[in-house]
Amino acid sequence: VTEALTKGLTEIVESHIDAIAIGATVLGTGGGGDPLVGSLIAKRKIREHGPVQVVGTEELSDDDVIAPIGMIGAPSVSLEKISAANELDQAMGLIEDALGKQLSAIMPIEIGGGNSLLPIAAAASKGVPIVDADAMGRAFPEAQMVTFHLEGYGPGTTALVDVQGNGVITRPTSGAWSERLARVTSFEMGGSATMIDYVHSGAVVRKCAIPGTLSLAHSIGEILLSPELRDEQRLSTITDTLGGFQLFTGKVTELDRSVRGGFTRGLAQLTGISDDKDSQMSLYFQNEMLLATRGDQLAAVTPDLIAVLDTATGQPITTEALRYGARVSVVAFPCNPRWRTQAGLETAGPKYFGYDVDFVPVEQLVSDTNAPSA
Amino acid sequence: VTEALTKGLTEIVESHIDAIAIGATVLGTGGGGDPLVGSLIAKRKIREHGPVQVVGTEELSDDDVIAPIGMIGAPSVSLEKISAANELDQAMGLIEDALGKQLSAIMPIEIGGGNSLLPIAAAASKGVPIVDADAMGRAFPEAQMVTFHLEGYGPGTTALVDVQGNGVITRPTSGAWSERLARVTSFEMGGSATMIDYVHSGAVVRKCAIPGTLSLAHSIGEILLSPELRDEQRLSTITDTLGGFQLFTGKVTELDRSVRGGFTRGLAQLTGISDDKDSQMSLYFQNEMLLATRGDQLAAVTPDLIAVLDTATGQPITTEALRYGARVSVVAFPCNPRWRTQAGLETAGPKYFGYDVDFVPVEQLVSDTNAPSA
Repeated sequence: VTEALTKGLTEIVESHIDAIAIGATVLGTGGGGDPLVGSLIAKRKIREHGPVQVVGTEELSDDDVIAPIGMIGAPSVSLEKISAANELDQAMGLIEDALGKQLSAIMPIEIGGGNSLLPIAAAASKGVPIVDADAMGRAFPEAQMVTFHLEGYGPGTTALVDVQGNGVITRPTSGAWSERLARVTSFEMGGSATMIDYVHSGAVVRKCAIPGTLSLAHSIGEILLSPELRDEQRLSTITDTLGGFQLFTGKVTELDRSVRGGFTRGLAQLTGISDDKDSQMSLYFQNEMLLATRGDQLAAVTPDLIAVLDTATGQPITTEALRYGARVSVVAFPCNPRWRTQAGLETAGPKYFGYDVDFVPVEQLVSDTNAPSA
Repeated sequence: VTEALTKGLTEIVESHIDAIAIGATVLGTGGGGDPLVGSLIAKRKIREHGPVQVVGTEELSDDDVIAPIGMIGAPSVSLEKISAANELDQAMGLIEDALGKQLSAIMPIEIGGGNSLLPIAAAASKGVPIVDADAMGRAFPEAQMVTFHLEGYGPGTTALVDVQGNGVITRPTSGAWSERLARVTSFEMGGSATMIDYVHSGAVVRKCAIPGTLSLAHSIGEILLSPELRDEQRLSTITDTLGGFQLFTGKVTELDRSVRGGFTRGLAQLTGISDDKDSQMSLYFQNEMLLATRGDQLAAVTPDLIAVLDTATGQPITTEALRYGARVSVVAFPCNPRWRTQAGLETAGPKYFGYDVDFVPVEQLVSDTNAPSA
């Protein structure tokens, strides 16, 4: 099974989509857009236009024009407000018009459920390759939380398109302004919109993007869907293979979730099962899972990845799909090392989100918890 | 003095600006942007670049490209958040870039204090003529309340620029969507922004615009500034000349004003002076004055023009500059006939703003009030 993790995709056909959706939802840490809607759109576009060629970042020419495309808004909204079939095409046309350039390839801005799949649909529709890479190595809630930003590259000219057919182009002065303008615009558009930002050259993408993440998502999905593994083996196979940790197993005993300021925000309280009934874990989220605590102890924190999976089946659960009473397992993985730099932590560390804790790598937190008390 | 009203401007020099500012503030019915800030910017641009050529709508060629430019946002904000000197230039560059066309001339989108003056500044800066016309014949709070809309012409591609240098281009599907997107964007930009919308050809402007309104504003301003007239003569000269009515004189005894949803909204209660102490007038506004009632009787209502002037000096007072205790006179004028059509009333009549009254022309309301009781 571990071989799957080194096996890169060379093209994406309809039968790949379910595995990519599931794997990307694990890496998406609860956010990144709804995987079901994204799957349906990607499958239909592949049926209509044929398989999508996958290219590695090393195959890009310096002057290729690469467009990340995805959904911005609260996942709670996008489940009920399905994006129109032509939103992707309209967004690509709008950005080509604004830039006066043709797009050479598409890439996911983040590896999250829907936002890994919409770029595949867009690439199929346009007949261009998709780059096996993204700009987060996970999903994050805000638009400037991308590796381009960490390397000093701005959002450039951005495009927003809604289900009504409205188009908005922004030329923001910074990544933070791009996020602010896109957030209020997508909120006014009904809570979600299709967005293209951080369109950069092949040279810049090669320097900034995190390579291989579409293939990684596909491999994780294959493990979780594998008929050869028993349900209880799936979780340990994933954590063992990715260098992750199983933090907690329990049921959801409290759930506070609402759409505020254009995000799905909330807190889930988990309580241990059977002989572990006194143990508790709290999960704080803003579209994505951002902070896990066990009592007053930090268990894992952004930018490290925190994912919630169904204990019985190993299927990942988005922050929007989380339900009271569900039996879930919490797993955590180290983030890409770029997010652990000073720039990375300033951009997407716990203090940025208003949590008064210092970042501690999840592997160190787990090691401290397991160490015998003095 | 009445001759002034038929005398069209052929060019605008610095010494015209004060009169235009005052006259446009009367026609702006309390809104249309702050006249002081607009005056300072227009005077400086004329000093730097020379006088601005004024052209009538009949002089436009069919394929001229005419850009209305102005400020969108709450007047309360624009007084404290002065627009940057280069916002006008940046907005004109952004729209030319988005359209792939050069602008032939500039026009005011509305005749209001600041929004009559910023287009003059823009025209001076770009070295193109200004059209002696606007698209409202007054000021209105929302972007789709323009004569283009009444004739079935949409906003087209629009540009928004803020003091930080952020640029936003929208391609909205309707005038209502243009307003919604521009309102939230300008609010996020800090409460106000420079906007270009309804860029149309000379042929369309000739068909839709209300001609002569810049010259009209200048003439009204000349009357109000005239050293030949005694203070108490100014008001009656204006109402007599424009076919308007003096509705009320009193002092402001209650004032409720706040910035909500990107607008300056509120209610001013006026009470009569000396032998008229029992009489009252209520004025409701959303950036502009929209409704005047005397007790439970309608006195004047949008789209007719309601202006508040200082009783002693005849100087117009914006909704933002209105102060508790001020002695003011309320005057009203019939709007351009296009606003009294079904389309006009649906777009900017009392019901649109949520007032449960039917539109009655101000001349009829005054005639009913003055008629002897049965």
